[in-house]
Amino acid sequence: MFQDALLWAGQLLNISIPFLASSQQTVLSYSTYDDFIAHCESFASKASLPGATIHFSQYVPAGTNISLDDNHPTCQISHWVVPSNVCRVAMSVSTSSESEMSSEAWLPYNYTGRFLATTNRGLGGCILYNEMEYASTLRFATIGMNTGFNGSTGAPMLNNPNAIADYAYRSVHMGTTAGKELTKQFYGSASRKSYYLGCSSGGRQGFKEAQDFPEDFDGILAGAPALGLPRIVAWGNYLSQAVGPPDSETFLTPPLWALVYDEVLKQCDKLDGTEDGLLEDPNKCDFLPETLLCVKGQKKACLTSNQVEAVRKIFSPMYGLNGELIYPRMQPGINTKRQMPFYFDGSPSFLSEDWFRHVVYNSTSWDGRTFTLEDAAAALRQNPFNVETYNGDLSAFASRGSKLLSYHGLQDWVIPSEMSQLYYAHVARTMSLPPAELDKFYRLFFISGMEHCRDGDGAWAIGQDRDAYGGKDAEENALMALVRWVEEGVAPEVLRGVKYSEEDAITPEYWRAHCKWPKKNRYIGPGSSTEESAWICE
Amino acid sequence: MFQDALLWAGQLLNISIPFLASSQQTVLSYSTYDDFIAHCESFASKASLPGATIHFSQYVPAGTNISLDDNHPTCQISHWVVPSNVCRVAMSVSTSSESEMSSEAWLPYNYTGRFLATTNRGLGGCILYNEMEYASTLRFATIGMNTGFNGSTGAPMLNNPNAIADYAYRSVHMGTTAGKELTKQFYGSASRKSYYLGCSSGGRQGFKEAQDFPEDFDGILAGAPALGLPRIVAWGNYLSQAVGPPDSETFLTPPLWALVYDEVLKQCDKLDGTEDGLLEDPNKCDFLPETLLCVKGQKKACLTSNQVEAVRKIFSPMYGLNGELIYPRMQPGINTKRQMPFYFDGSPSFLSEDWFRHVVYNSTSWDGRTFTLEDAAAALRQNPFNVETYNGDLSAFASRGSKLLSYHGLQDWVIPSEMSQLYYAHVARTMSLPPAELDKFYRLFFISGMEHCRDGDGAWAIGQDRDAYGGKDAEENALMALVRWVEEGVAPEVLRGVKYSEEDAITPEYWRAHCKWPKKNRYIGPGSSTEESAWICE
Repeated sequence: MFQDALLWAGQLLNISIPFLASSQQTVLSYSTYDDFIAHCESFASKASLPGATIHFSQYVPAGTNISLDDNHPTCQISHWVVPSNVCRVAMSVSTSSESEMSSEAWLPYNYTGRFLATTNRGLGGCILYNEMEYASTLRFATIGMNTGFNGSTGAPMLNNPNAIADYAYRSVHMGTTAGKELTKQFYGSASRKSYYLGCSSGGRQGFKEAQDFPEDFDGILAGAPALGLPRIVAWGNYLSQAVGPPDSETFLTPPLWALVYDEVLKQCDKLDGTEDGLLEDPNKCDFLPETLLCVKGQKKACLTSNQVEAVRKIFSPMYGLNGELIYPRMQPGINTKRQMPFYFDGSPSFLSEDWFRHVVYNSTSWDGRTFTLEDAAAALRQNPFNVETYNGDLSAFASRGSKLLSYHGLQDWVIPSEMSQLYYAHVARTMSLPPAELDKFYRLFFISGMEHCRDGDGAWAIGQDRDAYGGKDAEENALMALVRWVEEGVAPEVLRGVKYSEEDAITPEYWRAHCKWPKKNRYIGPGSSTEESAWICE
Repeated sequence: MFQDALLWAGQLLNISIPFLASSQQTVLSYSTYDDFIAHCESFASKASLPGATIHFSQYVPAGTNISLDDNHPTCQISHWVVPSNVCRVAMSVSTSSESEMSSEAWLPYNYTGRFLATTNRGLGGCILYNEMEYASTLRFATIGMNTGFNGSTGAPMLNNPNAIADYAYRSVHMGTTAGKELTKQFYGSASRKSYYLGCSSGGRQGFKEAQDFPEDFDGILAGAPALGLPRIVAWGNYLSQAVGPPDSETFLTPPLWALVYDEVLKQCDKLDGTEDGLLEDPNKCDFLPETLLCVKGQKKACLTSNQVEAVRKIFSPMYGLNGELIYPRMQPGINTKRQMPFYFDGSPSFLSEDWFRHVVYNSTSWDGRTFTLEDAAAALRQNPFNVETYNGDLSAFASRGSKLLSYHGLQDWVIPSEMSQLYYAHVARTMSLPPAELDKFYRLFFISGMEHCRDGDGAWAIGQDRDAYGGKDAEENALMALVRWVEEGVAPEVLRGVKYSEEDAITPEYWRAHCKWPKKNRYIGPGSSTEESAWICE
């Protein structure tokens, strides 16, 4: 942070800091705090962005509870307390002659010269204020954007190729381009480095950028990416069918899922060297659910053969009509006691129905219960605008020196982490680069005890979001580790995460250093499993 | 063996030994050794078996090198030195009005009252003299049989449903029935217990007996069973196609397969607690072949992306046209340095072509290189006489008190051991019996360092065959452990195997106790990995 402070001082004084290359300098459009406020309030009328309309710019002092009247009700956020002083700018950006997206910029006074874009989740277009808050507090000029449409469902994509294109790839690129220009005009010169932060659908969008718009970002932090998106939605239907409705013989009640979880731990927790309730490598877990079979006359909770069959199916990969892998298995170790995956609730997976109704078939009455592998094939064939995001050639991204830092939770019950492994291996083969070579621009970390993007039983707070970090230095924060990698060439060997207490979800309890794939954590002691030094990556 | 000796003495004296139940007694047709010889030489003319023709009976003193003139040349055995005194009887047994099988009995002088049947390997019908020698030396009245046809290929099954029926299920049952009657007539009363010994195709035949003829045997020792036979042959074609012919981009030369083996060990050998060249649980091995990718300009041996893709395919399961599992993956840990699997030699798998030509399509020109998943589906649909041998209901076998002891090598590169796990789980679900309940009649052991039925890098000599045991007591011999389980109710918790020296293949080097599934061996020390006590089953 010392270098940042010097840089910031240099910017304020409008002088060059000798050790900074000229490409790292920005020329600020303001010098004092009052200037910043005045500049902000008048910025909307002064700025001019090609293809974009600026709606307003407003100074937001730290602590302001801003009203988000325009936010779609399904986004479930109508107000947001902004914790740092920012200039907030709202704009619309054309994504085609017939479509546009909304974007919002939070531009901090104490700007570091770094630009950062954030996007969305699921099939929806909600601006992620949590990520905007996080990045702007870390002094990035931060752009949040919808995905060409608002709300938390794929309904706007019905019969709407523009919306699909925006969702698949276009909005992020257009929003980023506009956001960069806005940032440049606001601060007086281009940002010296540009970053991306996203998880889930936002993680996929980060990979899409690395694949198709390698010039957009110098560093991408992409978590739990929804790579192979049409595959995920097919798999969701498959899982829902495997358990069936609540009255079917294959359905498991929550107490039975809790039983399954306990048995997974019993069989597999120790494989990483210690039984701490966390699987450091679910791939090693060859789960045998038959141990839970009911014996005649058994009183204790147990599973019928049909239920065991369902569990086995869920923890096995899904294959398609030509015997090809559609999607990896649900990973053992997901805590079905802490959090019941929506796939298992007895109704068709909402996410899956949503995609098939609004994108694959344009039929809002399509019923997930009718799902067959033919439907899976149809979704994979369609793959609109290559939303699958599975191009394994990252050579343009790599050769311009950009860095891709990805993480995936090992308790992720929405998108199994194995998908990130499969893509990693695909990139390796496509580019003929073994892990040691991929390390130069693409690093992947698996986070034990992390569910989808956050939460879970382990030390999952790695610096991926607001309320998800144990510190703001590169040693303890994935986003700042990415910054250091990009700006200083020091790449992360581990991502350290903090475990919050279960009581208040804030108090740090312990740290764990999560390994860079393909290394995995193994407990060697002699300290307890909550001691970082008791683990090695091997 | 003390009880056997007493029993034997009782038989000679034709008196009851008090502690033996009357069902365990036999009344011998001879009393002195000279009687035995005379009885043997005249037996062919005296005996009368329904549906069978006895060709000859001859006394064979220990050390005789018998000539096997009638043995099919592809069986590659024309002589056999018989190491113990036996009465050898040859017969033909009708298997239908239009078909027959050959069978041979080796009836020891010092008979224990135990009957044992052995069968065949592969798609052929060769009598296994090694197994006959082994069992008769252990004083079983031993029956060897062809499979309704002779030779080592499936050619006799071409347009011949009788031969297919004999191969699939009939010959073993008919041969056993005749063999039991022959034994009864020879010794004067029925054998007190009947056993089965077989591996590979013979292992499958053992399971077929347990499934369909539960009365035939009190104890079955079935190794590396070819369960799901039409699946194996489909998989063989699939593997051969994955590597392709020697000039294809996916083909790996033997040195490259050696490289793959070394890398598998590097990634996975330590997962069982120690690096001794043996994987105690290949399921835990999540092999990442991309580590071997060639980097631009690399001099050291390495793999191209296409070769890595082929390796990945081989170590992944095979799925069919409806996304259903056809066959599990080739198991990591097979020593492709010691022994190159025939699937990888660049030509279509002989075994697979053999089955498709002579059973599935009745077309001797069918070419394995044209194989598609449609062919796999055709083979599975055909499943003649349920040769798949996958009935999961062993209740008749279990309820009569019979015992099934199965083993499978963890370096088996012909039939992956995971197939035995899948069947085990299938039986568990079909009968709703968890492992602790299956233990009462069905126990499965995985043998580290065992290739197909025998050989390999580990302590694979468990008592499955001649030259494959470290002792003749139940504690060190799988066959005698089965006998003890059947006759005394003491079931094996481990199968102890001996490792022979690489130099002479005879000198015992160390022992390892192989665990009863689903337990696996883990090294805990403190002794070296060659000490039995350094391992625990957990």
